[in-house]
Amino acid sequence: MNQIVYLVPLLGLIGLLVMAIKSAWVNKQETGDENMNRLASYIAAGAMAFLKAEWKVLGIFTAIAAILLAWSGTLVEESSPVIAIAFIIGAVFSATAGYIGMKVATKANVRTTQAARTSLKQALKVSFTGGTVMGLGVAGLAVFGLGGLFIVFLKMFNVVNVSSTEMKTAIEVLTGFSLGAESIALFARVGGGIYTKAADVGADLVGKVEAGIPEDDVRNPATIADNVGDNVGDVAGMGADLFGSYVATILATMVLGQEIVASSADGYNGFSPVLLPMVICGLGILFSIAGTWFVRIKDDKSNVQMALNMGNWASMILTVIASYFVVMYMLPDGVITLRGVEFTKMGVFGAILVGTAVGAIMSIVTEYYTAMGKPPVLSIIQQSSTGHATNIIGGLAVGMKSTVIPILTLAAGIMGSYYCAGLYGVAIAAAGMMATTAMQLAIDAFGPIADNAGGIAEMSQLPPEVRERTDNLDAVGNTTAATGKGFAIASAALTSLALFAAFVGIAGIDAIDIYKAPVLAGLFVGGMIPFIFSALCIQAVGKAAMDMVQEVRRQFREIPGIMEYKAQPEYEKCVAISTKASIREMMLPGAIALITPIIVGFVFGPEVLGGLLAGVTVSGVLMGIFQSNAGGAWDNAKKSFEKGVMINGEMFYKKSEPHKASVTGDTVGDPFKDTSGPSMNILIKLMSIVSLVIAPHIAVGGPGLEAEGDCCKKDKIEACADNHDMMGGKCDMSKCATMSMEECAQMCDSMGCDSMERAYCMSMYNDKGDYVGSCMSSCGKKCTSKEACMKNCGATCAAKHMGAGKACCADDAKCEKKEKGGACCKDKH
Amino acid sequence: MNQIVYLVPLLGLIGLLVMAIKSAWVNKQETGDENMNRLASYIAAGAMAFLKAEWKVLGIFTAIAAILLAWSGTLVEESSPVIAIAFIIGAVFSATAGYIGMKVATKANVRTTQAARTSLKQALKVSFTGGTVMGLGVAGLAVFGLGGLFIVFLKMFNVVNVSSTEMKTAIEVLTGFSLGAESIALFARVGGGIYTKAADVGADLVGKVEAGIPEDDVRNPATIADNVGDNVGDVAGMGADLFGSYVATILATMVLGQEIVASSADGYNGFSPVLLPMVICGLGILFSIAGTWFVRIKDDKSNVQMALNMGNWASMILTVIASYFVVMYMLPDGVITLRGVEFTKMGVFGAILVGTAVGAIMSIVTEYYTAMGKPPVLSIIQQSSTGHATNIIGGLAVGMKSTVIPILTLAAGIMGSYYCAGLYGVAIAAAGMMATTAMQLAIDAFGPIADNAGGIAEMSQLPPEVRERTDNLDAVGNTTAATGKGFAIASAALTSLALFAAFVGIAGIDAIDIYKAPVLAGLFVGGMIPFIFSALCIQAVGKAAMDMVQEVRRQFREIPGIMEYKAQPEYEKCVAISTKASIREMMLPGAIALITPIIVGFVFGPEVLGGLLAGVTVSGVLMGIFQSNAGGAWDNAKKSFEKGVMINGEMFYKKSEPHKASVTGDTVGDPFKDTSGPSMNILIKLMSIVSLVIAPHIAVGGPGLEAEGDCCKKDKIEACADNHDMMGGKCDMSKCATMSMEECAQMCDSMGCDSMERAYCMSMYNDKGDYVGSCMSSCGKKCTSKEACMKNCGATCAAKHMGAGKACCADDAKCEKKEKGGACCKDKH
Repeated sequence: MNQIVYLVPLLGLIGLLVMAIKSAWVNKQETGDENMNRLASYIAAGAMAFLKAEWKVLGIFTAIAAILLAWSGTLVEESSPVIAIAFIIGAVFSATAGYIGMKVATKANVRTTQAARTSLKQALKVSFTGGTVMGLGVAGLAVFGLGGLFIVFLKMFNVVNVSSTEMKTAIEVLTGFSLGAESIALFARVGGGIYTKAADVGADLVGKVEAGIPEDDVRNPATIADNVGDNVGDVAGMGADLFGSYVATILATMVLGQEIVASSADGYNGFSPVLLPMVICGLGILFSIAGTWFVRIKDDKSNVQMALNMGNWASMILTVIASYFVVMYMLPDGVITLRGVEFTKMGVFGAILVGTAVGAIMSIVTEYYTAMGKPPVLSIIQQSSTGHATNIIGGLAVGMKSTVIPILTLAAGIMGSYYCAGLYGVAIAAAGMMATTAMQLAIDAFGPIADNAGGIAEMSQLPPEVRERTDNLDAVGNTTAATGKGFAIASAALTSLALFAAFVGIAGIDAIDIYKAPVLAGLFVGGMIPFIFSALCIQAVGKAAMDMVQEVRRQFREIPGIMEYKAQPEYEKCVAISTKASIREMMLPGAIALITPIIVGFVFGPEVLGGLLAGVTVSGVLMGIFQSNAGGAWDNAKKSFEKGVMINGEMFYKKSEPHKASVTGDTVGDPFKDTSGPSMNILIKLMSIVSLVIAPHIAVGGPGLEAEGDCCKKDKIEACADNHDMMGGKCDMSKCATMSMEECAQMCDSMGCDSMERAYCMSMYNDKGDYVGSCMSSCGKKCTSKEACMKNCGATCAAKHMGAGKACCADDAKCEKKEKGGACCKDKH
Repeated sequence: MNQIVYLVPLLGLIGLLVMAIKSAWVNKQETGDENMNRLASYIAAGAMAFLKAEWKVLGIFTAIAAILLAWSGTLVEESSPVIAIAFIIGAVFSATAGYIGMKVATKANVRTTQAARTSLKQALKVSFTGGTVMGLGVAGLAVFGLGGLFIVFLKMFNVVNVSSTEMKTAIEVLTGFSLGAESIALFARVGGGIYTKAADVGADLVGKVEAGIPEDDVRNPATIADNVGDNVGDVAGMGADLFGSYVATILATMVLGQEIVASSADGYNGFSPVLLPMVICGLGILFSIAGTWFVRIKDDKSNVQMALNMGNWASMILTVIASYFVVMYMLPDGVITLRGVEFTKMGVFGAILVGTAVGAIMSIVTEYYTAMGKPPVLSIIQQSSTGHATNIIGGLAVGMKSTVIPILTLAAGIMGSYYCAGLYGVAIAAAGMMATTAMQLAIDAFGPIADNAGGIAEMSQLPPEVRERTDNLDAVGNTTAATGKGFAIASAALTSLALFAAFVGIAGIDAIDIYKAPVLAGLFVGGMIPFIFSALCIQAVGKAAMDMVQEVRRQFREIPGIMEYKAQPEYEKCVAISTKASIREMMLPGAIALITPIIVGFVFGPEVLGGLLAGVTVSGVLMGIFQSNAGGAWDNAKKSFEKGVMINGEMFYKKSEPHKASVTGDTVGDPFKDTSGPSMNILIKLMSIVSLVIAPHIAVGGPGLEAEGDCCKKDKIEACADNHDMMGGKCDMSKCATMSMEECAQMCDSMGCDSMERAYCMSMYNDKGDYVGSCMSSCGKKCTSKEACMKNCGATCAAKHMGAGKACCADDAKCEKKEKGGACCKDKH
């Protein structure tokens, strides 16, 4: 390894530096009149109130989890109590990423409104720069954190060899960083999602429906909470989500990279496959910064979407080109092998291409299914004409149908990237896709800033051309939100697969065989989890919205003069309700995600846990796509009525019966697309990471066959135990069962067996010359502990067992501990 | 084997005989006045019109499929063109089962109405006897068909030995019967489901909402179609569904039973595990008949539900007790082995107990989530108070939550039955559960008959006490419909698992490893299929309902005097629309279910197909439970308003705002619970059966490792190929790589290796004394064909390969064909 390892945190620092400059620029912009500032300050204060409340709970959670992790780190050789520190840093970084995004978003919103008073160009510049700050903050913190910690751990554990136990420890400890990041992400996403939709639904139900006042009206007590929700859900939640994906993807690729065996040397002492994902993602930051230069428009007539697309494509293409040179420069020539699959560095680049293509296709498909004017949304509009029920049926059908192409794309992506570079290919494909996260997030975070800006314009009763400009930005923001969700779910799916592969390696199993009954049971239970998780999220929104409705009704009733603008509603009460409800309701789903893999892993072993993870991933991706797209399509079907829609030759506008039906769909879709749908991303990632963290603990000692694969991590041969008579070729081994070792040898010779056949026959005898025939196979099935092995097979067989590379130890207590570390106990006997 | 094989079709015949007697009894009952008869004749004619239209399409499908099957039967040794005949018989039997049920239901409906004019007791007797005819018809035909064909095929293929190729052929051909049954079931379920809901939704949208006339009003042109729908969907569809499950379960158990190896002989020449499921199900028919005696009430005050429960429990308990004696009598003493798992006959009985328990729990849970007055339905009622959207959200959440306990039950059931008796246990658990299908179906079919009877009473304007009695029966029918669905999905899930296990055996693979990228891709694609299938079903209902709405509106407009009872609507036009639409719309989902496994199996091989099946099964079971229960809960939430519900201290009745919201939920739930939800059962079963039928064709020759497991079907040992240095114990085998065989032997001796360790070292050399070390493992990864093996490894290694039990043949062309039959080619070399 050489200086390149220091390049990684440096690239992260550059990202953070540019972020600071951009943030300062945003701060310098004008903030408009006093009224606007007052409203903006309410939103900012509400957002901070939520963050503080959330942090208090998460602080307690982090402290407890860190103590448990530190304790668990002492149990196995491959881990270390330091994992707790990595965990805390990950949690703090993730929270910081969310904080930065929220802080700048709550500043950029009012400044965008003010900028929109002059021109669309300026409004785009302010809002997109706000988004860029968020994107660079997330990516910069991730790359800086991972790269920096990696260097620290390399030194701390004195790593010199990439395949050493020390290196394994360093990587295992690094997973703590990812676990911390993803745990915070879960709560931020779920809590934020509940917050934003509780406020939104609550504000709409009383404000729009009962009181008949428009959206974003200052008289509505819940309107500030609604605007705060955009920030805590769409900005902080999304930021923490992608921060988690980004870190997890890089980490999973590092874990797999560490296992790689190359036929020729690289210039990095074998570390190049470990460093590669960090370097590519670091460069992705630079090219994301470069891409922001392309996001500019001329005047109010320019196409904002086009400008954003330009920036996106520019950073993607630049990153792919750069990846080619980085891969060629860093990776070794010749054959690279990972777990028996051979590939070349050209294959690795191919996998990166595949990953980028998967991300792009997922975004495009998501946009198709949720965009106004496209057939799916039009079909929902059409079905709104016959009432609420058919609108709902239409949206559900669109959501379900929208899973087809993404899943086929994902399946093709898995196979394609695996074909290119084995499991490392699957992981690096995800990393390639995630490399431009900074840009993706900039485009994504721009939407809620524009949305907020529009809200402030409305609440401050600014002239219509201002609202028109912010509406233009907001409309584009809706599309980018949809494509961003497509990107997020694709990244989560590939990340989970990479983590899945990493888990298999560390858990020491070499197969997850769903043909085994317990594994299949795990698959079923795993598949069910996204359903209960979604149900809990949806219910939480419903409950919290009810609380909000009661509070808004109370204020209208008890505070006279609200309707006449004479009295100001108690905004902070509504903010407090949303905050409290979201914190309360995020506990149970969060606990399910965190605890289920731990229970299943320790009770049923790593293979069943693998089945569980596969079930969660498949079902979670499906439910995520289904819910996000159904929600997005309903939303835009409703929005279509604002400009009027043609159904069976008749034009319908707002307040028409079909429009009312479309509002029902939108309300159902709200928790789908902003709470439960996007939570699926984190659910599947978090459960995979938890599994990865506990992998060394469950690797040996679980029941059944799982425990024994430890020595066989890299490759295995299979032979038929019950068909011993075949294995000897000409030698009829079945006859040996009744012969002494010498007699058997004589028989082999007399039958003209070759040396290999003879050796096989001989291997059926132990060193005392006793026939132990199928002992290995029956032991293999039953040896769950040293004692069981001794009991089932006897000492002789146990020893033979060990001789065959099995991890069944006869009598060395200390060896047992060593085994958990993955090394065989051969040298102890 | 002895005379017991003839007992099976005999038991089926007894069932059919009793059915004929009961059917004659129903026919003898009074049919009421002329008006009632006229309406009943419309319904009967409409139902027959649908069946005829459906049969025409299915006739063409069956003919084409039979030709393809006959052709494919000539391709592999294990199959035979006779499979086409089995397929046709299966299709005809399934259609006949549906026909019998429909015929008796359309007779029993009006007779129940007439009986309700006298007493509830008599009405229950008529309607339940109608249901019993259906149940006995289905079970009788299944047992008679399977048992009879089995005897025919035993003779035809001259089977003497249970583990012979001839026996395999006989069983493979028998799968044709199941395929025929399940194909018809799919179209009956999907087509019937679309029919019934298109008519229902269409009739409601115009009749109730636009014209303001009550349900089942003769003035509504779609009302006859609606009542026909109850028969074609709930009676014929459900009948064909359970006929398919019943046959598939028995068959899967037979396939696995054929593989069993017992340590001691049974009295049936080893056939007892194959015969057992047929005998148990045959006895189940007898005890179902016995159970019907318990279904009787005293007077109008009696509890109908209790009477049905009595009958159900009686037949279940009797069957379980009988199973104990049958298992003890038939199965051999001592250890029974299936694919390396050992168990005893007591374990087999334990698995039957587990299966019965799973079925019972699933029914109870389903009832809980959908019954009036229970918390889930109450929560939906509560959420109806805030509008359509919250009602929908509530229902979706209930549906999602309702997956938890059934999935945990299923997972526990899989593990429990596997623990009791391996994979045979999983299959026999399903068979035990299905044994009382006749009774289950009698209870289930009674519901729609009562529903129809109520419709006829309403349309004929009979006195209120008649309607009251039929309503009483109808309400019970709603509950039994829900529990019936729980039973159907549990049976489908266990059946699919049994089929899954049977598939693995015949396909010659010994693992379905989701850790392999293509298998994981298959899992994803499989998981997606229930989503697109559901979307297509839901959409089809929407489209067909639209057609119906247009037609009803046209009739109201163009035929004067309908509203004043002066003119009769053109009922047959509406019947024709529903018929045409359902036939048209069932094609695409049906094609997906049939063709996907064929494509995946032939292109990607059996292991990927296994992944696909697992994905379909998990996702299908989840979506089935979710949709059925959400629909059922919405339905009963709406029905609760008829008697009035209390929300926040206020009473709400029909026509209130919350009631309107609940109607929206009910309409959304209609296609969920009667079209897409129950279709999931058949989807997962049909895809498994198609896979089972093509299994011999794809067993060898697929890409990757799959082809090689053939010899290792029963058990295997694993050893580390890349860790050879470990395997030698004291011998450092890695050094042998650079040594000659003699040098290595000397080293072993000098290091004091024991005989086993030495033998291992020696096994690394071929008969020429060349070091071939890890050859086996690299060959194992790449030998997809004879040529590849020769090329990658050389003849020496190929031979060694074979010696190790691998199916990689060097040069025997004929042997390749033989391999497909599952036997190793060792004797060819």
